[in-house]
Amino acid sequence: MIIDESYGHGGDVYSRDVLLDFSANVNPPGTPPEVVAAAKAAAENLSAYPDPACGALREKLAALHGVEKADILCGNGAAELIFQFALALRPRRALLPVPSFSEYEAALRAAGCEPDFLPLRRENGFAVTEEILERVTPETELVMLCTPNNPTGVCVGWELLQAIRARCRETGTRLLLDECFLDLTDPEAARSLIPELERGEETIVLRAFTKLYGMAGARLGYAVCRDRDFALETCRTVQPWNVSTTAQAAGLAALDCADFVSRTKALIAAEKAYLLRELRALGISVLPGRANFLMLSGLPGLYDRLLEKRILIRSCANYRGLEEGDCRIAVRTHEENEQLIAALREICHA
Amino acid sequence: MIIDESYGHGGDVYSRDVLLDFSANVNPPGTPPEVVAAAKAAAENLSAYPDPACGALREKLAALHGVEKADILCGNGAAELIFQFALALRPRRALLPVPSFSEYEAALRAAGCEPDFLPLRRENGFAVTEEILERVTPETELVMLCTPNNPTGVCVGWELLQAIRARCRETGTRLLLDECFLDLTDPEAARSLIPELERGEETIVLRAFTKLYGMAGARLGYAVCRDRDFALETCRTVQPWNVSTTAQAAGLAALDCADFVSRTKALIAAEKAYLLRELRALGISVLPGRANFLMLSGLPGLYDRLLEKRILIRSCANYRGLEEGDCRIAVRTHEENEQLIAALREICHA
Repeated sequence: MIIDESYGHGGDVYSRDVLLDFSANVNPPGTPPEVVAAAKAAAENLSAYPDPACGALREKLAALHGVEKADILCGNGAAELIFQFALALRPRRALLPVPSFSEYEAALRAAGCEPDFLPLRRENGFAVTEEILERVTPETELVMLCTPNNPTGVCVGWELLQAIRARCRETGTRLLLDECFLDLTDPEAARSLIPELERGEETIVLRAFTKLYGMAGARLGYAVCRDRDFALETCRTVQPWNVSTTAQAAGLAALDCADFVSRTKALIAAEKAYLLRELRALGISVLPGRANFLMLSGLPGLYDRLLEKRILIRSCANYRGLEEGDCRIAVRTHEENEQLIAALREICHA
Repeated sequence: MIIDESYGHGGDVYSRDVLLDFSANVNPPGTPPEVVAAAKAAAENLSAYPDPACGALREKLAALHGVEKADILCGNGAAELIFQFALALRPRRALLPVPSFSEYEAALRAAGCEPDFLPLRRENGFAVTEEILERVTPETELVMLCTPNNPTGVCVGWELLQAIRARCRETGTRLLLDECFLDLTDPEAARSLIPELERGEETIVLRAFTKLYGMAGARLGYAVCRDRDFALETCRTVQPWNVSTTAQAAGLAALDCADFVSRTKALIAAEKAYLLRELRALGISVLPGRANFLMLSGLPGLYDRLLEKRILIRSCANYRGLEEGDCRIAVRTHEENEQLIAALREICHA
């Protein structure tokens, strides 16, 4: 919750008069009807406390990923789990590649840690490079890594990811790998670390229902953590009833929506190709991101000019390591994308 | 969330085969239909992120309590706010009267604090007495106080409460007063501290929608905190989207349910009188609590014997300062209360 004006994330359709929201990276078709139906059914049963063990949901997730139920932690959105891990670990030294999702830094600060930053360079297309291996030292207690990264959409290469993981095991560093956008990533880049995780391993993988299933408002995320002691520590940083009845029911229903997921992946692939083509035709500098969003650069003033047309995009000026004129757009439905391109065309030609 | 078997709260209808739940202190008529309808309507809009400012809800709560919007903090249930306050303050020394709600201790431990306990004595009917004034010293950074207390239902006397508040101001101690059950308390004992709070005052009052509006599954609580700096610190311990769209919509609808609230208070008063009369007629020792639940004593084995009849009550054996045979029952509807009394009669006569 925020009580001041400090909010700088996408999706703030509440304090602005917006017709089209390209600022939040949620799946364009929205919420599957089965998930809406499950949330409505759950509304009939709000009087009882939610299941503190998230039993049915964790069983289903464990089966999906081929791990044990005790390896699954559920949270009030993946964002809550980021805070929980930071609070459970209370690292003295933590390494954050930047730019990245700003809640990593917020969570570390809440846990009393001033993070070390690893700048991802514009001239490298904001890719994580082998430089990270030297920056992980025995003093580094935690690395938070996002693949594909937010807001750039750039994935950590598979070999490099394995090298980072090996380096972290060598130095006793915990690796939190945020795969929240992996389900909406180009298939050839979307390889998950979850099947690789070994029992007791310190690496944790974070996942969300938010983006893939259009469930941002319901708040549901989870982590695969095969280090049982640390999983217990993590649970102790939070109340027992952090995942609402609605979120649990919606999550259970979502896991049955395989058709929706494949349709949605096809839509995003086609629409991302369309947006890339049109943006480049307009002479706009766009990073070839692999996720369901794209980062544009060199466009100071674009945010305001689109807002005049009641189109909200994500200004990235407040990301550590980015600047005025960097912005992020979500891949939306074809009709919405056409409207965005038309608006950009007007602005570019004016 | 819990991943082990450590859960010891009421309301666990998930791991047991239960017909009647007297273990959770939720309002007997359940959720008002208007709240269910609002939660269902919110289910149509889960794709967007929730309002991180909880703007409409905080405005309505501020108007209700005659404070400013910035004085209101909303949480994923009141339980989340307890953790947030502990994490924002990180007290070295904190005082907890016991027995009381166990999440105070859990939250303090999560914040790295080993609390000091003030035993409430059985021979005093578990009342908070003037002894607390001596126990609050300049080293005490936080006191967490629950009125009426859970699980005893005993209120802190108004004069004593004012003396505690004055003592805390003298010693620079923050006072967290948990009024989560105050709306379901005998009217003559249900005086809130909220109207007394002065701007900048370190006392914080905690409230929940959970019990009064049958919204335990939706997760919504709030606090009135008129110390702006500490409110900001508290917000920094948590993600921006901690209160779901469903909870915000349900909460807004609940605040319009004045008729429901007065009907419910009348029901609880009548049913509590019925339960007290019948329990005493059975020779059961029952504390004259002021809330929507009652604490019974001297009944070892009762929990198991009722569970055999598929009636779940709250064993209080795991409360610090209580013992085997102490248990708590919620005041339910007349039909349910009759079934409980009938079961108790069978057990007592067996």
